[in-house]
Amino acid sequence: MSDSPHSTDGDTSRATLARVAEQAAVSMSTVSKVLNGRPGVAAETRARVETLLSEVGYTRRGAVVPGAPLIEIVFSELDNEWAMELIRGAGATAKLNGMGLIVTQSGTRHAPDPEWIDEVISRQPFGIILVMSDLPPANKDRLRRLQIPFVLVDPSGNPAPDVPSVAAANWDGGLQATNHLIALGHRRIGVIAGPHDVMCARARVSGYRAALESAGLPVDDDLVQPGDFHIEGGLVGGTALLESRDRPTAVFATNDLQAIGVYQAARALNLRVPEDVSIVGFDDLQFSNFSSPPLTTVHNPLYEMAREAARILLDIRAGSPVGTGRRELGTSLVVRESSVGPA
Amino acid sequence: MSDSPHSTDGDTSRATLARVAEQAAVSMSTVSKVLNGRPGVAAETRARVETLLSEVGYTRRGAVVPGAPLIEIVFSELDNEWAMELIRGAGATAKLNGMGLIVTQSGTRHAPDPEWIDEVISRQPFGIILVMSDLPPANKDRLRRLQIPFVLVDPSGNPAPDVPSVAAANWDGGLQATNHLIALGHRRIGVIAGPHDVMCARARVSGYRAALESAGLPVDDDLVQPGDFHIEGGLVGGTALLESRDRPTAVFATNDLQAIGVYQAARALNLRVPEDVSIVGFDDLQFSNFSSPPLTTVHNPLYEMAREAARILLDIRAGSPVGTGRRELGTSLVVRESSVGPA
Repeated sequence: MSDSPHSTDGDTSRATLARVAEQAAVSMSTVSKVLNGRPGVAAETRARVETLLSEVGYTRRGAVVPGAPLIEIVFSELDNEWAMELIRGAGATAKLNGMGLIVTQSGTRHAPDPEWIDEVISRQPFGIILVMSDLPPANKDRLRRLQIPFVLVDPSGNPAPDVPSVAAANWDGGLQATNHLIALGHRRIGVIAGPHDVMCARARVSGYRAALESAGLPVDDDLVQPGDFHIEGGLVGGTALLESRDRPTAVFATNDLQAIGVYQAARALNLRVPEDVSIVGFDDLQFSNFSSPPLTTVHNPLYEMAREAARILLDIRAGSPVGTGRRELGTSLVVRESSVGPA
Repeated sequence: MSDSPHSTDGDTSRATLARVAEQAAVSMSTVSKVLNGRPGVAAETRARVETLLSEVGYTRRGAVVPGAPLIEIVFSELDNEWAMELIRGAGATAKLNGMGLIVTQSGTRHAPDPEWIDEVISRQPFGIILVMSDLPPANKDRLRRLQIPFVLVDPSGNPAPDVPSVAAANWDGGLQATNHLIALGHRRIGVIAGPHDVMCARARVSGYRAALESAGLPVDDDLVQPGDFHIEGGLVGGTALLESRDRPTAVFATNDLQAIGVYQAARALNLRVPEDVSIVGFDDLQFSNFSSPPLTTVHNPLYEMAREAARILLDIRAGSPVGTGRRELGTSLVVRESSVGPA
């Protein structure tokens, strides 16, 4: 909008853009396309123009900085409460700072769709929160040239090393869940792992192993079942554990959906929760409190992670040193009714 | 942004704004404040300037129409899957049309916060989806003067008559749920109503009564318990129903959260679901499939409602006749394991 507080004065802007067009040996219309993230510009040309725009200080006078008063949060999947917690957290910080929140669904756990980068550049947000483990290098380069800050909220726990990221203390959460069951007196404790390529699931299982080892309990590989972070994985793995001759008296499910699957497995085998088997989840999603009995679980600080990510964007825009490090926010055990001492 | 495809040419814009300032007898800075939704302008002045801006056709050349390529969806509560379904639906239609989705939490079930209108006017979205039953008249006037279209997705079912709105066929859903229980052989069927001021809950209970009457069954007021659309209401109302001497063999809970409360009431009274009591919910949220046993419920077409709302915004912008009527999308019964014939 030409009269927004973020816009440039028309004449100065035009002169600056003309200078960039001349130096880049392209037309004004090409410069305009680059500015607005529209297609029809070769990648090298786009990079050259973006670099020049940044160099001539267009960013200080122009539309590029501080960007529209919008933070954009990008998800590969928008289908559960888990995403809602992140939306709430990012939205709260955006609102506190007078900004709106754009919610985008795009791509996979590892990268957004190819066309996303053009859309986001045309929107010129204040900053971007990516709920994925990395961005393609070309996307990073373009965002950096345009000085649009970005941060990863990293659910799978395998963040790119050159981008600031926020994650949960997954290992410690697995440790807490297992220590809780050990403290209740359980000695045979099963675990449902997560998908192979999701590092946070591995971290939770590592925490489980560490707790057993610290307590001097043997780690029996039969007690570690593969999972998929969905109900199905909990049902299959839970059935395998609970049907076995030397069945465990407790199961740590590494996420709440899998815990629901273990409930279903127990129900199908006529085992009572928690009298016959204790179950502990991970995430503390709303439905974990609705199950019968309500689920003991590890609180995943999703709301806080998104707030922290938005705060990092504010820090970058304010010129504060942020670094590219990963930071982890603490998890905490929520004891409800699905865990008691063994019979 | 001065170079966005939606912006105005600097000189023409300035001349137009100067003319508006002169006619309104205000400064250019006041016109600019009005345009950008910034504070410090008296309400009458703001209204006069907005009307003039619209009259001089600023909207055709300027930043106001067609607005930023963003649809804004406004919720009073952003805390459950219910909201997520609406976000997914609106987001899908926005994306299909090359637009982003702004998700805002503001105000109550009946109106957004007072400051919201200034924020949204500064954002100049393509259109607005309000997940509430009405907007204050002054907000409607301002949005209409700025030609920003808006539509209600009306969860509580009591829409303003002068705004297009999209709702679910709640009465029919209540009818279907109860007919299902009658067809299974139940003759004493309890119901947990919803909050007094939420018309959709009343519609669902009316559908329940209509089903009983159609089947020639008496409507016993002892079988109608008040509710709150939360677990607590289902627990309290469910306990009252299931403790009574002549307890019902089935309960229709009017929403899924209350159904979970009835599960808890049954569990506390050592009654089995569905062997001792059948339970039917309403909404078909994800967790209704996670409960033990999975819940029979009425699918609430939230995703489709938000898609329809976004489509109405597109129609209004395209100049298609839309009208201010309410439209209802159909509900459908999803039979799972919580409902069987009476013992």
